[in-house]
Amino acid sequence: MSTKIGILGYGNLARGVECAVRQNPDMELVAVFTRRDKETVSILTKEAAVCPLSEAKEWKERIDVMILCGGSATDLPAQTPEYAKYFHVVDSFDTHARIPEHFANVDLSAKEGGHVAIISAGWDPGMFSLNRLYAEAILPQGKDYTFWGRGVSQGHSDAVRRIPGVKDAKQYTIPVEEALRAVRAGENPELTVRQKHTRECFVVLKEDADAKRVEEEIKTMPNYFADYDTKVHFISEEELIANHSGIPHGGFVIRSGVTGWEKENKHVIEYQLKLDSNPEFTASVLVACARAAHRLAAEGATGCRTLFDIAPAYLSAKSGEELRAGLL
Amino acid sequence: MSTKIGILGYGNLARGVECAVRQNPDMELVAVFTRRDKETVSILTKEAAVCPLSEAKEWKERIDVMILCGGSATDLPAQTPEYAKYFHVVDSFDTHARIPEHFANVDLSAKEGGHVAIISAGWDPGMFSLNRLYAEAILPQGKDYTFWGRGVSQGHSDAVRRIPGVKDAKQYTIPVEEALRAVRAGENPELTVRQKHTRECFVVLKEDADAKRVEEEIKTMPNYFADYDTKVHFISEEELIANHSGIPHGGFVIRSGVTGWEKENKHVIEYQLKLDSNPEFTASVLVACARAAHRLAAEGATGCRTLFDIAPAYLSAKSGEELRAGLL
Repeated sequence: MSTKIGILGYGNLARGVECAVRQNPDMELVAVFTRRDKETVSILTKEAAVCPLSEAKEWKERIDVMILCGGSATDLPAQTPEYAKYFHVVDSFDTHARIPEHFANVDLSAKEGGHVAIISAGWDPGMFSLNRLYAEAILPQGKDYTFWGRGVSQGHSDAVRRIPGVKDAKQYTIPVEEALRAVRAGENPELTVRQKHTRECFVVLKEDADAKRVEEEIKTMPNYFADYDTKVHFISEEELIANHSGIPHGGFVIRSGVTGWEKENKHVIEYQLKLDSNPEFTASVLVACARAAHRLAAEGATGCRTLFDIAPAYLSAKSGEELRAGLL
Repeated sequence: MSTKIGILGYGNLARGVECAVRQNPDMELVAVFTRRDKETVSILTKEAAVCPLSEAKEWKERIDVMILCGGSATDLPAQTPEYAKYFHVVDSFDTHARIPEHFANVDLSAKEGGHVAIISAGWDPGMFSLNRLYAEAILPQGKDYTFWGRGVSQGHSDAVRRIPGVKDAKQYTIPVEEALRAVRAGENPELTVRQKHTRECFVVLKEDADAKRVEEEIKTMPNYFADYDTKVHFISEEELIANHSGIPHGGFVIRSGVTGWEKENKHVIEYQLKLDSNPEFTASVLVACARAAHRLAAEGATGCRTLFDIAPAYLSAKSGEELRAGLL
C-alpha cells in the first residue's frame, strides 16, 4: 500500500517531513500547501506541487494523509480539527497540558468526517511518552524521570532574543550529570527543577548593548531561567553561525522500579535519544504515523488516536510475517 | 476490569509472575497448575489454589488469562497451542528462529477456540523487539545493534555445568565497551561475534578435577564459547553462593540512522535495561500482556498476537484519558 502525503505549512518541520518521505519507498509527497505566496516557496521534491492553503480541500481525493506542520500555539488547535473533516491527518501538537482538549476537538471532527487523526506525534510527546507508558505498565512500583538535552530550546532561545540589546541567541538545555547518575542507580531522588537541568545561552549583542544588564535579565527571567543555573556566553555573530546553527536535541526517559515478593529486586529501563536535528527526527515520527493512519483508515477506523492507541506494527513498512521473522 | 490469572508451571518465571500480579491491583492470582505433586509445591499467594496440571481445563470458567511459564524448548511449543483452545493465554516463547512456526500453530488453535493468545512476551523477544521495530520505522536508513548483558546466561551456565569435573558454574555475558562506544557514536561498525560480547565463567570444581582441562574445554566449546574471548575463574562453592546466586541481566538496543535531504543529520536511539532479576522482569511484561489479552478478548478479538500487534495503551491499567493527561 503506497501512501500519498500532503504537507500543510512549510517550515523546518515540513522540510523534515519532505526528507523523511523520500526515505520511505512506500510514501510519496504529492503537494505542499502554504499561506505564503507560492512563488516564494521552493521545495526540494521536484514531483510535488506547491499550492496555496486555500486550495487544500480540493485535493481531498488525491491525498491519503495530510501532515500538519504548523505550530502548537495557534495553528494546530484550529487546523487539526478543521482538516480532519477532509483528510486523514497527523500532527505534532506538543502543548502537553492542552492535549486532552485538543484530542477531544480532533476526535469529534475526525469522527464526523469519517477520518483518522493522529495527534501529538514526535518524541516528546511521542516516543518519550510511549516509553513512559511501557515502563510504567511493566514496573508499576517505580518512578520515572524525563531529562531533556543537550539540545536547543526554541522557546528559550526566542525568550533571550526578545531582551533589548540582544541581536541573536541560542539556548541549550542540559541535563545535570549527577541527577542522571542518581536516577540510573535507582536511588529515586526527589529532584528540583534546578537539580535536573542547567541552561546555557550563547548571545550576540547589539553594538551598544550592556552585557551585564543582558546577563542579569536572562538569569532572572521568571519561568524561563530564574529557577535554573544558567551560564551566559557572549559571542560574535560569526561564531554563533559557525557553531550554533544546528537544532540538535534529545534526552532521556528513565524508570527505576522494584519487583519480587519483598520488592527485593531493582530494575532500570532507560530510553535515550541523541538527535542532530530535532525537527527532522520529529518529522520522521510523523511520517511513520502517516503510514499508520492510512492503514487504520483502510480498516475502517475513524477518530483521534495517539501513539498510545496504535499497535506498533502499523508504523512499519514491513508485514507482520517479516516483523516476526526479522525483528521479534 | 479485574483480571483473574492462572499460572501454568511453577519455576522462577512463574514465581516472578506471582510477584508481579501482587503489584497490580487489577490482577488476581486464582490458581497455579503444576506437574509436580501438589503437596510439594508451596506458593506465596495464600488466596490462590495449587492444582495438578491435569485439572487445568476444569478452571476455564474461573480464569480470565492463563500465563504459561514453561520452557521454550519443549513445553511451550505444545502447551501454548493446547491451552489456547481453553483459555486466553500469554507465553514467553523465546526461540527466535521458531517464532513464525509457533505463531502459526498458536494462531490456528486460538482462533478455533475463540481465544486471544500473546506469545513471545518478555524483553528479548519483547521490549527489545519493540524498540527495534519503532527505531527502524522512524529511521529507515540506519542500522541497529542488540547487546546483551552484563547478565547471567542460563544456557551457557548449563553448558559449563555439563563438563566433567564441574560441580557448579555461572556464566556472564558482557558487552564489549569499545563496540558500544562505536555504535553510540553512530560509526555503524561491522562487528564480529567476538567484538560484541565477552564471556566470563565462575566455576566450582569437583574435588579431583583438572582445572586446566576444564578451562580448555570451556574455551573451545563450539557455538557456546569458541567464537568469544572467555575468562574462567575457579572459585569456592561458598563464593559462588555468596556472589553469584542472582539472575541479573539486561542489555542495549541501539539504532543509529540518518535524516535530511543529503543524509546530513545523524540520530541515535538507545534502549537500555539493567535488571536485578531476569525472570521477574520477564514476568512483569507477561502480566502487562495478560491485561492486554483480557481487554482484547473483551472486544471480541481472537487469534495470536505479539507485542507488535498490541496498542500500548492495552498494557496499562490506566484509562485513555488518564494516559493522555498524565504520560503523553
